[in-house]
Amino acid sequence: MPTVREASFDLFRARGMTTMFGNPGSTELPMLAEFPADFRYVLGLQEAVVVGMADGYAQASGRATLANLHTAPGVGNAMGAIFNAQANHSPLLITAGQQARAQITMQANLTNRDAIRMPQPLVKWAYEPPRAEDVPLALAHGAHLASLPPRGPVFVSLPMDDWGAAVDEADARHAIERTVSGRATADPEAVRALAARLERASNPVFVAGPDIDASGAWDAAVGLAERQRLPVWATPAPGGGRIGFPENHPNFRGVLPPAIGPVAQTLEEHDLILVAGSSVFPYYPHIPGPLLPEDAELIAITSDPDEAARAPMGAAIVADVKLTLEALLEAVPESARPAPEPNPGPQEIPASDPLDSSTVHSALAEVFPEDGIVVLESPSSTLALRNQLRLSRPGSYYFSSGGGLGFGLAASVGVQLAQPDRPVVCVLGEGSAQYAITAFWSAVACKTPITFLVLGNAEYAILKWFAEVESVQGAPGLDLPALDVASVAEGYGVKAHRVKGRDEVRDALAKALASSRPELVEVPVAPGMALF
Amino acid sequence: MPTVREASFDLFRARGMTTMFGNPGSTELPMLAEFPADFRYVLGLQEAVVVGMADGYAQASGRATLANLHTAPGVGNAMGAIFNAQANHSPLLITAGQQARAQITMQANLTNRDAIRMPQPLVKWAYEPPRAEDVPLALAHGAHLASLPPRGPVFVSLPMDDWGAAVDEADARHAIERTVSGRATADPEAVRALAARLERASNPVFVAGPDIDASGAWDAAVGLAERQRLPVWATPAPGGGRIGFPENHPNFRGVLPPAIGPVAQTLEEHDLILVAGSSVFPYYPHIPGPLLPEDAELIAITSDPDEAARAPMGAAIVADVKLTLEALLEAVPESARPAPEPNPGPQEIPASDPLDSSTVHSALAEVFPEDGIVVLESPSSTLALRNQLRLSRPGSYYFSSGGGLGFGLAASVGVQLAQPDRPVVCVLGEGSAQYAITAFWSAVACKTPITFLVLGNAEYAILKWFAEVESVQGAPGLDLPALDVASVAEGYGVKAHRVKGRDEVRDALAKALASSRPELVEVPVAPGMALF
Repeated sequence: MPTVREASFDLFRARGMTTMFGNPGSTELPMLAEFPADFRYVLGLQEAVVVGMADGYAQASGRATLANLHTAPGVGNAMGAIFNAQANHSPLLITAGQQARAQITMQANLTNRDAIRMPQPLVKWAYEPPRAEDVPLALAHGAHLASLPPRGPVFVSLPMDDWGAAVDEADARHAIERTVSGRATADPEAVRALAARLERASNPVFVAGPDIDASGAWDAAVGLAERQRLPVWATPAPGGGRIGFPENHPNFRGVLPPAIGPVAQTLEEHDLILVAGSSVFPYYPHIPGPLLPEDAELIAITSDPDEAARAPMGAAIVADVKLTLEALLEAVPESARPAPEPNPGPQEIPASDPLDSSTVHSALAEVFPEDGIVVLESPSSTLALRNQLRLSRPGSYYFSSGGGLGFGLAASVGVQLAQPDRPVVCVLGEGSAQYAITAFWSAVACKTPITFLVLGNAEYAILKWFAEVESVQGAPGLDLPALDVASVAEGYGVKAHRVKGRDEVRDALAKALASSRPELVEVPVAPGMALF
Repeated sequence: MPTVREASFDLFRARGMTTMFGNPGSTELPMLAEFPADFRYVLGLQEAVVVGMADGYAQASGRATLANLHTAPGVGNAMGAIFNAQANHSPLLITAGQQARAQITMQANLTNRDAIRMPQPLVKWAYEPPRAEDVPLALAHGAHLASLPPRGPVFVSLPMDDWGAAVDEADARHAIERTVSGRATADPEAVRALAARLERASNPVFVAGPDIDASGAWDAAVGLAERQRLPVWATPAPGGGRIGFPENHPNFRGVLPPAIGPVAQTLEEHDLILVAGSSVFPYYPHIPGPLLPEDAELIAITSDPDEAARAPMGAAIVADVKLTLEALLEAVPESARPAPEPNPGPQEIPASDPLDSSTVHSALAEVFPEDGIVVLESPSSTLALRNQLRLSRPGSYYFSSGGGLGFGLAASVGVQLAQPDRPVVCVLGEGSAQYAITAFWSAVACKTPITFLVLGNAEYAILKWFAEVESVQGAPGLDLPALDVASVAEGYGVKAHRVKGRDEVRDALAKALASSRPELVEVPVAPGMALF
């Protein structure tokens, strides 16, 4: 009879889950014993980094990914990253060790006292098997559930003395071999009605969300926009964890503003708003106004029942975004509407010293490889980067749609491990970098040739902008004097370059992109927001 | 009528809570607007550091302490540190901003969707006031509850648009002015019975736990041990977050081993085991055996009902540790038992290259100031430090009793801010330092003259020891090559010294102790555990 460990690793193997992200503790050691040679263990030095790396890997590989944490305190350190993974619809199978069963009830040190509640409310499912022999089935349950729509993290707590127990061979085989298919297309009747509504619209518009990319629906989204002559907006940036439509496409208009009044104002002229793969909408500051332009109708396609249920306006269709957009594309004719005015492309930015972040991003755009990937966490220059780079390939952009910092630096390591042949550029604010700073060590340890671009303005620029929006004065903690990310990164073994002028930035980025090891380019930038 | 902000800050002021630890986000800005000049805001660059600093400050000041976090992701990043604060019985009033009330139901970006469940199961109480005008009373409720036994973290979620609302002046005054007294001595009958039992015992022993220090019961503990001729053990190190008895006292025997069988074996000769201010017991590896020596009786005094209820053996008295030990001291006569053999003091350690951690701690002991404080997070040399230093003053030792890493480095900043006149030495393993590494920046920003002592062995030594205990082989992730804490600390502005020989270590520590700014001494040490 196989042991719990053998059956569990066979399960992981059968599902292609042979990369495990982790930070080990005493309660995880028995799971990791005799770690199989065909598995890879990616060590993070703090658990927020472990889950951030796993999140990036899961999104960029499209596959349920293992993150192994250390009982309650390890899960605790990771909770901010689990929040991000939930917002990102990232399929993570998170496990944590637990005290030996004999010591749980007396709550010996390192007991995860309330293991099932510990990761709530951020996981789809949390479980601790009541017997050792149930572990493989619980892990199978978790792996399937994480991958089913809406994708997201699940959690299994694993008592440390379970791994050597025997499991029934036939039961284990069933658990390991079964498959679950979870993609479903919308009711054909709903698709036909939507197609008819679209045809009837006088001035429809398309809003592209992150789950277009996650579901592989780029071609369908582009096809639909072209066949129906739809202008296309990206969903507001705070919720735009991935890019769902080529931002250099003539139909592309830009990124929607992240507040109620401004969204309605931006979409004013449209009578039908078709949203795909996004919540409706990821608003951020509260700027009141009508939820929709007068007489406009909104219809959203999402694979997340909660996104559909909680939206304050419009109709929603819950189904796989790709299959449903494909069905819709087949159901609509070539429209007679005129094509939208072609988008003029990035704006020129006046020269400045120190550089404006937009100028830095325009320098990045000059050397950015066609198959490059951006992992972004620079809140005050998110829009500038999108506007200057106009990323236009699937799987080219990862951003924390939940708004929690700490995603970018860690996720870039996971993205690079999942996509070893594509150049990864991780763009960070000096403040953002701090939330997962030890990921530099993992980037070096894993030999990931990431190019880190760090913008330094000695402040939390997004908060100063927000303070203005909210008329807040005299708040402490918004300045970041004496932060030197380049030196800290060097301390972790990353080669760092400090550059100031636009050409120097471009050349340093080109060199870093050509390097086979992680390199960092730090640039002082002007304070404030960079929007264009 | 005062605003919510005015009444809340008056409440904090009235309770001496004028130091706020935080990492601000957009949802906290309205709370921080016009931050009063008599308050101090201590900025942490990641939320685990914010709560770790607040935990150290709360323990070393003995006062409920404010930690202000950024909605769900900020609370998430801090959950490991909140786990530690719970284990440390640290009175924290944790607040987090929340979306504007108008945008919570639609779950706009940065909504803390399930705010009350988010910090569970690690807080005593979690609440989100249903109306703006309830905020001051909710904060008062939290501050009182955090300070009442068993002390621990509480959580209040604060919608960002509440701060300008008006509150009733008389209601606010009541909330601000009321006091709550929560220390209670044990039933006199229980104290008399315990005194009689102690007198009757032929060979009683005393086990000193962390809450002796937290409750201010050192004098009573020493008085009792001396009057009753009790040998004294410290509770097992994993649960010994503070030291409850002078470790250079003749009656002191040592630190109990952290496992069931070995504890019973160590206490074999005793017929009565009196435990104060500890759980019974903070076991760590599972080494089975009898819970108590045959025919021995155990009686524990604890202010934590849960510690009392969950213990697998012995009787317990739930009451304030100090008041109850004082009452017991008054109720017992001078014993006729012979005094315990005087403790021989620290062991000599043979010379080695690289140095043994014990040798490093013996060098530290040579220059350690009488009023010094150690904040410790070096799992593989915890016992060596205790054995070599024999700390013997109240409030001289802080360690994470929950076992979560990330406490030490952050807490040392809070301890130093709470005890500006006492020299603080923070002893870290190179691996431990990574869980809260950005606290170096806060140490510099706050001009805290902490001496950091970092031991480098290029491994998670405690895990290799544990793997041996559990017969685990072939586990990945236990080596830490190329970690250079000194360089990273320098990147954050800490002056760092790399030293190797024993005399160099001693001299470097002496210099760092004399410095008025944070300095770090990094020492390569031999691999493995240091127990003596």
